[in-house]
Amino acid sequence: MKLQTAKGVRDISPEEQLLRQKVIDVLKNTFEKYGFAPLDTPIIERMDVLASKYAGGAEILKEMFQFKDQGERELGLRYDLTVPFCRFVSMNPNLKMPFKRYAIGKVFRDGPVSTDRVREFTQCDVDITGTKSMLADAEFVNIFNDVFCELGIKFELRINNRKLLNGILETVGVKDESVILTIDKLDKIGERGVSEELKEKKLSDKQIKEIFKLINTKKLSELKKLIKSSIGQEGINELEELFNYCTGLTYTFSPSLARGLAYYTGTIYEIYSLEGGIKSAIGSGGRYDKMISGFLESKQEYPTVGISFGLDRICMALKEKGLKISKTPTQVYLIPIKTEKECVDIARELRKQNIKVDMDMNGKGISKNLQYANSYEIPYVIFVGQEELKAKKVKLRNMKTGKEELLKVNDVKNKVK
Amino acid sequence: MKLQTAKGVRDISPEEQLLRQKVIDVLKNTFEKYGFAPLDTPIIERMDVLASKYAGGAEILKEMFQFKDQGERELGLRYDLTVPFCRFVSMNPNLKMPFKRYAIGKVFRDGPVSTDRVREFTQCDVDITGTKSMLADAEFVNIFNDVFCELGIKFELRINNRKLLNGILETVGVKDESVILTIDKLDKIGERGVSEELKEKKLSDKQIKEIFKLINTKKLSELKKLIKSSIGQEGINELEELFNYCTGLTYTFSPSLARGLAYYTGTIYEIYSLEGGIKSAIGSGGRYDKMISGFLESKQEYPTVGISFGLDRICMALKEKGLKISKTPTQVYLIPIKTEKECVDIARELRKQNIKVDMDMNGKGISKNLQYANSYEIPYVIFVGQEELKAKKVKLRNMKTGKEELLKVNDVKNKVK
Repeated sequence: MKLQTAKGVRDISPEEQLLRQKVIDVLKNTFEKYGFAPLDTPIIERMDVLASKYAGGAEILKEMFQFKDQGERELGLRYDLTVPFCRFVSMNPNLKMPFKRYAIGKVFRDGPVSTDRVREFTQCDVDITGTKSMLADAEFVNIFNDVFCELGIKFELRINNRKLLNGILETVGVKDESVILTIDKLDKIGERGVSEELKEKKLSDKQIKEIFKLINTKKLSELKKLIKSSIGQEGINELEELFNYCTGLTYTFSPSLARGLAYYTGTIYEIYSLEGGIKSAIGSGGRYDKMISGFLESKQEYPTVGISFGLDRICMALKEKGLKISKTPTQVYLIPIKTEKECVDIARELRKQNIKVDMDMNGKGISKNLQYANSYEIPYVIFVGQEELKAKKVKLRNMKTGKEELLKVNDVKNKVK
Repeated sequence: MKLQTAKGVRDISPEEQLLRQKVIDVLKNTFEKYGFAPLDTPIIERMDVLASKYAGGAEILKEMFQFKDQGERELGLRYDLTVPFCRFVSMNPNLKMPFKRYAIGKVFRDGPVSTDRVREFTQCDVDITGTKSMLADAEFVNIFNDVFCELGIKFELRINNRKLLNGILETVGVKDESVILTIDKLDKIGERGVSEELKEKKLSDKQIKEIFKLINTKKLSELKKLIKSSIGQEGINELEELFNYCTGLTYTFSPSLARGLAYYTGTIYEIYSLEGGIKSAIGSGGRYDKMISGFLESKQEYPTVGISFGLDRICMALKEKGLKISKTPTQVYLIPIKTEKECVDIARELRKQNIKVDMDMNGKGISKNLQYANSYEIPYVIFVGQEELKAKKVKLRNMKTGKEELLKVNDVKNKVK
């Protein structure tokens, strides 16, 4: 038997996982600073929940891992964190609104595999349900800014409103909503490509010209004069209110941005990394005011807004930036020279000072030990032989410079941190 | 459609999840202080890996969730973190030994459900492979001590050695290894119960008397004189060396402890919570020197020792201790009195100071807002009306005492922390 991982899934090595944990810590701390609480829902869900017509839709169902338990119940692995969130809200009618939660967890899709697409990946979602206020939307603009400033990733955060897109269609007299999907391709296929696709969709030259004029108007106050549609005006008002709450934050108003046509009802967000030359989406989100109530087949309103972070892409952006990643948390590697018992006590002292310590356990020679420390890129090594014990000191070696010095155990922390 | 979770799995509410995260943070920080690095393996594994005869065995295979991907490949959900660890070590022959990793993740078993048994639960494992040294074992005695001291849970850590158990059998002239399982029941069924079961297993009264004499000898130096068996002496020597490294730590030598007869080869650990009257195992582990090499069908040796923490049980012990758990991370809830825009800026200031802040977004009245803050047990509320704005201050209310005071925004952190 040749041991291997399943197709489309992969091991995350310690080196990669240390980086992921760093990113996850930034996300968690930011979410909690904004009053979002962690919610953990199961990886296994009932088929009827996952297949609800208000959930993923046919496209996603095809890619669902399905199975039965011993009692022949139909089950599946969750393919996102939104459906379980909707189910949780529905099953807990006594939740005080607004309800703010975040979730960081694995989701599964049995689809085609590429370098960018795997079958098991981590989603990081943060959502508020129970408020229509643009104050809620403003929280997410803040969160995007805080997270990427703290990670040191240059970004472009684009914001639009679905109602404005509908207003553009109404203003130019187009009924076909799929035109929004074409407009959304502006960045990918350029004005020419969009123009051609709009012609195929039977828009007149005049209509196409008008659309370009509108989506190229980046000032809300000007757009306000051009949009002849009440839904469009509503979208503009929401954006004005939102931007009013976002003084000092980094964002771009982007009237062509659509994404997720299917369920977004108001504000839409997409954020790109500007690191390493590749412009890739590292987060996105928006308002989906109708999804939960549709899902629950309920008349109660659950206006909801949320965003999601792409953990893998964020890690990639940090690597492109040249972030130095550790291979181990270990800061100091202890080498006992026939002083095992004493080293156990020294290790305990150092760990009490919150230094991350490993030690040789196999009685390797000094050069093999240095090789070991080097292979894991451990920054410091400590030697403890009889001489050091007599002097009640340890010999600390900086593995980068090769510099060695005799120190009291209590003084190691000043050198290492 | 009635929305519900799948059988045997459950949502972890924010309140519970905040507690779990606290425990996980203690575990992670401790593991890293000992130089263990995080490894994340997939939840989906190939059937041939999970069903390897050196892996779970027939008992566990029956409880495995099995399914196929679109390419008809046979897959399953992992039922522990040890098998994936073995697979990872095998697939990475260039890993420098010893290799130290920890893993915290969900595992799945399609078995009977009870309050104590669910189908999806979290395991927290920490293992070293590549060393036979008792220095490695001593690390785990330290880790057990550190974790439960930091969590404030009173514990009893029992330690034994599988070789000593074999030595006891040899000394009294018993070949039937299942006798060890009977001895292990001492705590559950008492001396009388064990004695009766040993009689059923055809042991003579003399043999039974001798066994009790040996397992009641809690001093290694005395036991050393009584054990007539080289494997037994080896076990005693290992324990002596281990205990020599454990000065100042809390543990109990427990000669009747067996557990995991199937694969443990040396030291055995079991740790109990002494909180709340219920004595339940909250962690366990031991040496399994033969498992990885057997699994790999390789002649290379992979002596390994590791322990596992029971997250659910630890959380239960903390609750039994009466630990106060928050319902939300929020520390301060802002109530704007027609000052939304200004409150957005105040919230930003407070969050910059690392205070966890939520605010009213729905323009609720004061009493509804206080109700909301109370329902989430948020400790502080801030009111901002025109008066406060004029004074360039905010009104902070301690929700427990009802005390209110006017403060500068910058002074809030001194009151809240």
